[in-house]
Amino acid sequence: MLITPGKLLSQINTPDDLRKFDSADLPQVSQELRQYIIDLVSVYGGHFGASLGVVELTVALHYVFNTPTDQLIWDVGHQAYGHKILTGRREVFHTNRLYGGISGFPKRKESPYDAFGVGHSSTSISGALGMAVGAQLKGLKNQHSIAVIGDGAMTGGMAFEAMNHAGSLANTNMLIILNDNCMSIDPNVGALKEYLTDITTSHTYNRVKEEVWNLLGKMSQFGKSAREIVSRVEDGLKATLLRQSNLFESLNLRYFGPIDGHDVDHLVHVLNDLKDIPGPKLLHCVTVKGKGFAPAEKDQTKWHAPGKFDKITGEIFKKIPDTPQPPRYQEVFGHTLVELAEQNPKVVGVTPAMPSGSSMNLLMKAMPERAFDVGIAEQHAVTFSAGMATQGSVVFCNIYSTFMQRAYDQVVHDVCIQELPVVFCLDRAGFAGADGPTHHGAYDIAYMRCIPNMIVASPMNEQELRNMMYTAQLDETQNGKQAFTIRYPRGEGMMPQWRTPFEKLEIGKGRKVKDGEDVAILTIGHIGNYAVKSCQLLENAGISAAHYDLRFVKPLDEELLHEVFQKFDKVITVEDGCLQGGMGSAVLEFMVDHGYTSKLKRLGIPDRIVEHGEQIELHRECGFDPEGIAKTAREMVHAVVYS
Amino acid sequence: MLITPGKLLSQINTPDDLRKFDSADLPQVSQELRQYIIDLVSVYGGHFGASLGVVELTVALHYVFNTPTDQLIWDVGHQAYGHKILTGRREVFHTNRLYGGISGFPKRKESPYDAFGVGHSSTSISGALGMAVGAQLKGLKNQHSIAVIGDGAMTGGMAFEAMNHAGSLANTNMLIILNDNCMSIDPNVGALKEYLTDITTSHTYNRVKEEVWNLLGKMSQFGKSAREIVSRVEDGLKATLLRQSNLFESLNLRYFGPIDGHDVDHLVHVLNDLKDIPGPKLLHCVTVKGKGFAPAEKDQTKWHAPGKFDKITGEIFKKIPDTPQPPRYQEVFGHTLVELAEQNPKVVGVTPAMPSGSSMNLLMKAMPERAFDVGIAEQHAVTFSAGMATQGSVVFCNIYSTFMQRAYDQVVHDVCIQELPVVFCLDRAGFAGADGPTHHGAYDIAYMRCIPNMIVASPMNEQELRNMMYTAQLDETQNGKQAFTIRYPRGEGMMPQWRTPFEKLEIGKGRKVKDGEDVAILTIGHIGNYAVKSCQLLENAGISAAHYDLRFVKPLDEELLHEVFQKFDKVITVEDGCLQGGMGSAVLEFMVDHGYTSKLKRLGIPDRIVEHGEQIELHRECGFDPEGIAKTAREMVHAVVYS
Repeated sequence: MLITPGKLLSQINTPDDLRKFDSADLPQVSQELRQYIIDLVSVYGGHFGASLGVVELTVALHYVFNTPTDQLIWDVGHQAYGHKILTGRREVFHTNRLYGGISGFPKRKESPYDAFGVGHSSTSISGALGMAVGAQLKGLKNQHSIAVIGDGAMTGGMAFEAMNHAGSLANTNMLIILNDNCMSIDPNVGALKEYLTDITTSHTYNRVKEEVWNLLGKMSQFGKSAREIVSRVEDGLKATLLRQSNLFESLNLRYFGPIDGHDVDHLVHVLNDLKDIPGPKLLHCVTVKGKGFAPAEKDQTKWHAPGKFDKITGEIFKKIPDTPQPPRYQEVFGHTLVELAEQNPKVVGVTPAMPSGSSMNLLMKAMPERAFDVGIAEQHAVTFSAGMATQGSVVFCNIYSTFMQRAYDQVVHDVCIQELPVVFCLDRAGFAGADGPTHHGAYDIAYMRCIPNMIVASPMNEQELRNMMYTAQLDETQNGKQAFTIRYPRGEGMMPQWRTPFEKLEIGKGRKVKDGEDVAILTIGHIGNYAVKSCQLLENAGISAAHYDLRFVKPLDEELLHEVFQKFDKVITVEDGCLQGGMGSAVLEFMVDHGYTSKLKRLGIPDRIVEHGEQIELHRECGFDPEGIAKTAREMVHAVVYS
Repeated sequence: MLITPGKLLSQINTPDDLRKFDSADLPQVSQELRQYIIDLVSVYGGHFGASLGVVELTVALHYVFNTPTDQLIWDVGHQAYGHKILTGRREVFHTNRLYGGISGFPKRKESPYDAFGVGHSSTSISGALGMAVGAQLKGLKNQHSIAVIGDGAMTGGMAFEAMNHAGSLANTNMLIILNDNCMSIDPNVGALKEYLTDITTSHTYNRVKEEVWNLLGKMSQFGKSAREIVSRVEDGLKATLLRQSNLFESLNLRYFGPIDGHDVDHLVHVLNDLKDIPGPKLLHCVTVKGKGFAPAEKDQTKWHAPGKFDKITGEIFKKIPDTPQPPRYQEVFGHTLVELAEQNPKVVGVTPAMPSGSSMNLLMKAMPERAFDVGIAEQHAVTFSAGMATQGSVVFCNIYSTFMQRAYDQVVHDVCIQELPVVFCLDRAGFAGADGPTHHGAYDIAYMRCIPNMIVASPMNEQELRNMMYTAQLDETQNGKQAFTIRYPRGEGMMPQWRTPFEKLEIGKGRKVKDGEDVAILTIGHIGNYAVKSCQLLENAGISAAHYDLRFVKPLDEELLHEVFQKFDKVITVEDGCLQGGMGSAVLEFMVDHGYTSKLKRLGIPDRIVEHGEQIELHRECGFDPEGIAKTAREMVHAVVYS
């Protein structure tokens, strides 16, 4: 479907075109840009509310700053649709997030206007500071670096680390724009949010500051003795109010705001002023996520990425299936956690800012005192979980696989070295799909299985996920003093009737899914369902393949593996994870350690950055979709000489 | 040597004994504890300045709180010697940091008084908050959780994440003690430090607060119109000064202090008061690192861990060798970086708070504008480096291997996905030695080699380190758009004459160190020098071993490996890193991918937590000291049937 841009927007192919307009035209440009985003996303889907919230900011930034020479970083990048549309990608925007299309996030390879690739939260200040310092070292004094960061991303520790550093580089030309909408994907949490609300409501920071100056001024009317008091106090008061009375000024960043982030005229005015102020500084903009589309303003979590919708009525289109469909693994996790918490009073849940994405919101609703959204703060989430575990809590800490990379040290240092039996549920393991390389959970098997005191498991279906969770919280498992990682993918499982009774699994035990003679296929996790199809394809081709679901990468099922290597001289491993050091390598280690010499072919994510697309498209590209697995098996079986 | 405790200290075997004393005795207890630490460390070595700085705090905390029921966490733990001495470990303290002896850090396994294992920075608030919440869930209302954290550790992002969460849990009983001594191991850096200095000097926060109240009080003397001004402003001012005027209060933590951390009477008084105040709160204590030992107060970095010394004269004992000794790899790094920076104007250096430990201080001294100490902030260090790399800087980002775990996501997300050629120098890779399991750099090969766009190398000697660094910064390498990791161990190399001319290395090329017939030994890094000795031992036993130094784990030298597997049916890999997914597994992957069926035995760090001790002791324990390697080779060669 052709989306037609408005009259002014249609003339803007790059920010240079935008900058030719009179500033009086910017409200209309903003309006057209907003409408274009609504038109696009209603038809093609994608992230929505965040981009609507920064329409005016996007227009103002590209109008005032000299992009791409000036470096503009959008933290996380959900909100950069307007930016992409203004920077040469309007005509290809309908390919957004599609296989082979443009990325849903800013990406250096895609455009010189995408100064820094983003996806994970809270990186922008560090990146912008590095750019500012790098430019300075090259003698580029007039190059600006701008980080646009949300109040949610601001809770991520690295944002604080970066501000602490920035505040000590008084000559560095960097602007932080705090895009304060009180939201992450879910409502933002924590003390910082309360603080920002405080300084943007009733007794605002600025008003207090002004009133104090007025007070001091008026004091002088009371004569010498009052003037003396004033003079004695003034220095200290100034220091306090100007420097220490604001969290950001405490960190030596000049603080400006709060201002209305939807007033494009005022934004242009303020940004022009800030351009001339040297040193690190922060502009606090208050915006509304979903601005200008009433339903999205009203339910901001639902409209973060609503899928396709009717832009007139606000109805979100949902496919209504004819038959009962399997649930998403996310739902199985959420409901199962509530069931377990009902049975076991020690069970608690922790999520770093992903209550709806992980379905932790179900426990938060059912037992609010036993479910903790700690903000965008993966590091803290893990060590907080470790602290609770020392007190006997059975903690289900749910973190997306890709975000667990941010808490790796805490898993090693605070959980595994201390033998604390925290349960890690790694959501969105394997290819994330349309979110692309920043969000693929590709490395978790490799980086988790090398840590001692760690169990690594992955379910092939809903029932296995339920049983793994059930097993993880049992006293006997917890007493084993090992962390327990359960990784599972984004999306649907296999079992419409998934609420099966709990069954204890033996830790480190896999299962034979299907017997066979010519070749053995070993899988871990949901991807095992591909192998089921591969076995059928192979059977049609006259090849008898056995299929084993390992269930556990660590500890490995040695009995099962002895059986496999004693029986088969051709073995294939399949995983939705990196080939270097992954499950296949674990099997290899076992094989060679025990002197077996079977031919072994490992299938999984290769040693390169795989871009975005539907999961099945990416699996196919990497050769481990059902046909890819079958092809490898055929080649192995038919090879006269394997080399 | 027997160290005799003072009269009071000798009666204290547990904090219960301490609590029997009259509070009037605490200054003497403190004095005796300080002297005991000086006596001990002067003879046995270890961390020094940090523990002297918290003597009074240690005494006061155990006096006021009911440890071990109350949970006391010492962030990092360098400062916990006094704590250990008061909690039952006085008599074994001479085994501190020795193989088989007590740990230099608090450790849950060692004592119930060590509520949470520490080592890496900035974990204590998260841990304490988890404990507080866990205790609350169990209905233990009177259990206190206390985190003692330095101003350096406070710059670590996870401390901020934890405070943001803590500030939103208004009913949680947790006390943070900010031990403010303006130091990490090196002087603390960043805006936070300036801020803390501000509120502890001249115009202190408290004085300003008081003076404002006085001012408002005195205003009333000027009649009704002044009173009206006061009343109009007061609310806003109160909100600002009481809540927002302090960084910690911005985060909804009740702030107390600053107080003198060496006045034990006052500390006891304040802590007793704070015990009864519910909710999350912070006490700001100002202390002096090295307090009570003049030389240590004067040069705090030198006396962080001085080694053995004369406690009367303050002379630090240095072994003076008879012949020129090889330098530490750290020194080679530092001097080489300066040489490269002199040749290549694009070269810059980044360290997260380890300028002296890494020798980055050499570049900081030579070219202060091109060397960046970013504070305890590994995440920021990596993304800041990425930002600079986008501007063409050639960044040498030096992070201890164990601390790189904390910036794993940033390496994946901000560096490798973006193809930015940052050079990572991973210091203290392999066993850290006396610092023990929290500091072992055991997992880096596994977690780095699974990331695309990453080169992983390790030098066998000083010359290789120099040449790797030289190669990494060459234009042709940088244009390859890959990150370049160079890992090397703590301690001495092999070459007294190490300032060799630079030579470009071919990336992904190893070398044959020694030819042989019966077995091939493949090594990576400094540990290769063990293999040299093993080959001699084997020669004496009539076995001819070949030795190859891989130099690169990634990319692997495929030509060399083909040569090895075509010639040898017995191969040993040796690495000072974890066996799961490490270099040996990389070689295995190559071997099986190419259809070789040699016997291969991997030596390295096993899948368990290895405790502290001298590096060689730990290598021996794990079977990859020179004799261990030779033993494995003998067994392989002599085995009639290998199984």
